[in-house]
Amino acid sequence: MNKVKPVGPIPAGYDTLHEELAIGGAMASALVRQHGSPLFVYSKQLLTRRMADLRAAMPEKLNIHYAMKANPFGPVLKHMVSLADGIDIASAGELLMALASGAKPEHISFAGPGKRDEELLRAIEAGVTINIESPTECDRALLIGAGAGQNPKLAIRVNPTFDLKGSGMKMGGGAKPFGMDVELVASTVRKIIEAGAHWRGFHIFAGSQALKADAIIETQTQTIALAAQLADDIGAAPEHVNLGGGFGIPYFPGDEAVDIARVGDALKAQLGDLPIILQDTQFAIELGRYLVGEAGVYLTQIVDRKQSCGETFLVTDGGLHHQLAASGNFGTVVRRNYPAAIATKYNFEPTETVSIVGCLCTPLDRLSDNAAMPKANVGDIVAIFCAGAYGATASPANFLGQGPAKEILID
Amino acid sequence: MNKVKPVGPIPAGYDTLHEELAIGGAMASALVRQHGSPLFVYSKQLLTRRMADLRAAMPEKLNIHYAMKANPFGPVLKHMVSLADGIDIASAGELLMALASGAKPEHISFAGPGKRDEELLRAIEAGVTINIESPTECDRALLIGAGAGQNPKLAIRVNPTFDLKGSGMKMGGGAKPFGMDVELVASTVRKIIEAGAHWRGFHIFAGSQALKADAIIETQTQTIALAAQLADDIGAAPEHVNLGGGFGIPYFPGDEAVDIARVGDALKAQLGDLPIILQDTQFAIELGRYLVGEAGVYLTQIVDRKQSCGETFLVTDGGLHHQLAASGNFGTVVRRNYPAAIATKYNFEPTETVSIVGCLCTPLDRLSDNAAMPKANVGDIVAIFCAGAYGATASPANFLGQGPAKEILID
Repeated sequence: MNKVKPVGPIPAGYDTLHEELAIGGAMASALVRQHGSPLFVYSKQLLTRRMADLRAAMPEKLNIHYAMKANPFGPVLKHMVSLADGIDIASAGELLMALASGAKPEHISFAGPGKRDEELLRAIEAGVTINIESPTECDRALLIGAGAGQNPKLAIRVNPTFDLKGSGMKMGGGAKPFGMDVELVASTVRKIIEAGAHWRGFHIFAGSQALKADAIIETQTQTIALAAQLADDIGAAPEHVNLGGGFGIPYFPGDEAVDIARVGDALKAQLGDLPIILQDTQFAIELGRYLVGEAGVYLTQIVDRKQSCGETFLVTDGGLHHQLAASGNFGTVVRRNYPAAIATKYNFEPTETVSIVGCLCTPLDRLSDNAAMPKANVGDIVAIFCAGAYGATASPANFLGQGPAKEILID
Repeated sequence: MNKVKPVGPIPAGYDTLHEELAIGGAMASALVRQHGSPLFVYSKQLLTRRMADLRAAMPEKLNIHYAMKANPFGPVLKHMVSLADGIDIASAGELLMALASGAKPEHISFAGPGKRDEELLRAIEAGVTINIESPTECDRALLIGAGAGQNPKLAIRVNPTFDLKGSGMKMGGGAKPFGMDVELVASTVRKIIEAGAHWRGFHIFAGSQALKADAIIETQTQTIALAAQLADDIGAAPEHVNLGGGFGIPYFPGDEAVDIARVGDALKAQLGDLPIILQDTQFAIELGRYLVGEAGVYLTQIVDRKQSCGETFLVTDGGLHHQLAASGNFGTVVRRNYPAAIATKYNFEPTETVSIVGCLCTPLDRLSDNAAMPKANVGDIVAIFCAGAYGATASPANFLGQGPAKEILID
């Protein structure tokens, strides 16, 4: 018998109804009966509440952008367009989705280290802001804009000299493929201004998935100072500065939610005491996972329950083809258990240790490893939480001929 | 400047033409010009040659199956159907693809720990062999067969008591979700026979991606002994035994190809000296990666070349959304470089150290880390080798709105 491994903390906002997990008032079994299994369920109410809580904590004049790479599912995106001040895209494919979901071009910005000429052209024609990642990309954008008779809107993505401490993904503080090093920024901005293009400002993203308020505050402080220093170098004020994101969500045992009140208070103080050159600058933060991650649940039905060498396996009809990150195969070194539960026995006490695996014929396909759960049988439904971000589209849906899971947004 | 990290060994069978990588006589740049970038190129000639070499080394009466999960691209699958003695599938989706590619039902077998009732029904109706993974799955298959008025063809997938030493994926030698423990096999087979269903034999898969001939030989010896012991327990001979696969391919520096001559000689000796109860048994091995992995190349064009903190990055229009495993994010703990080259400067000497990254806005998207390469510019093409298996379908194609890469099979 292996040692029990704890599962991560179940996010707030989920209820119990007739001893089952309920999402937005709907029982897990009813959702699966109606829509099939496996199923991603996203809650509009939880999305709305998260944004409202965040707005309440953040400075009033701060813009909040949604980084749609976290979850581009049409109905979710449409709802996020209605809630957010801007949509951050990472490809021409996402541009089409954002426009189709009602985002206005002036609220869209496009970052990504490998933009093709065609993507630059589409972005310029659509009139969205392009976060320029290198001097050569700047040249290409100016050339393409001139060729198309369009005036591009260009911000500079800066590779910050600092990283976000404790972040799951470091995107600054050393050699990086993202953005341009600080010493290249001023000359590139001057080139944009001289070419008569529209210089929008800066995009400075130091890392993601951090949980410590202090680390986020320190990074925001450094980011604002860097923006001011760059503006001084250039001798012109940026109309817009994207401070990046970095707000993480708790996935694993011991993780604690970001103290957004502290982050917000610190940012209010910062924005209330800006260097002169940034007095009229509009600031934004860019969040993906934080806005949508906890508002989604992945439901998958148990198709077999089996013993092997004294251990119990629950085999589900889902797996890593929909939940690559939960299987521990996406940017993680040590596999830990995401928050998980038996949705159809939601308020039962755990009585056994089980491993919950997917239906794929590979040992990688493990959704929960030696977790303490109430006894579940074939037909019961497993819930994997924190499935609202980097789930469906960040997983190899076609692996082993399985195809994607259905996704739904419920009230 | 970071230390140079070596890249893996480039497989045999690739040529240089006008200083470029040539695949089946076609230059990389010509392929990209015609089909676009990024592009998976599979070589029919290399697939054919690999199978011929393997057949020459293996015992004449051994069947060689293709595990289509490795590469289900239609034209590749069709070609593999023409070369292999059987097709191993892992879902009802793969069943449809196998039948559409001309595989005969009597040559198809279906393994997978989480088969849904509907999948069992389709497999029974099609008349393919189902590798039964648990006593309860056996009950379901018999019930579904009876309900459909069909006599199912059932083999037992056995969880072996041993693993394949040095294998990248261990699928035996302890508690596993795959197959059933040895002590459950005899009673399950008796149930199949008593129900009047067709008992096909055993499927025993101990691991995959091993490079040492000795380890593979040892596992095959153990597997045949286990099959004989199980047959003795049951008191009936299996008509078919699938010995599993396990033949790996060299991905990383220092990896050496499996010595198939040694494996074949040992297996010839084994099959020539079988226990009486297995005298009339048909044996098969099941290979995926080994048959197709080295016959594929992923080509992706450089869209930016940039410096950051003294390091050079080549940013391509491809990435982990097509090459998750090469990015080090699929079942690997320590990231190492796959075999890679500048396809458009194929026979040039390396002159610089570069990191080759994908176009996705995430630090995970790294195709080659601090590799020694000839100087490449925007427009040059990067080749990532060993892209024939677990590439296109084992990667999150829709991540960041990118979509799948084109795939082609060339002569």
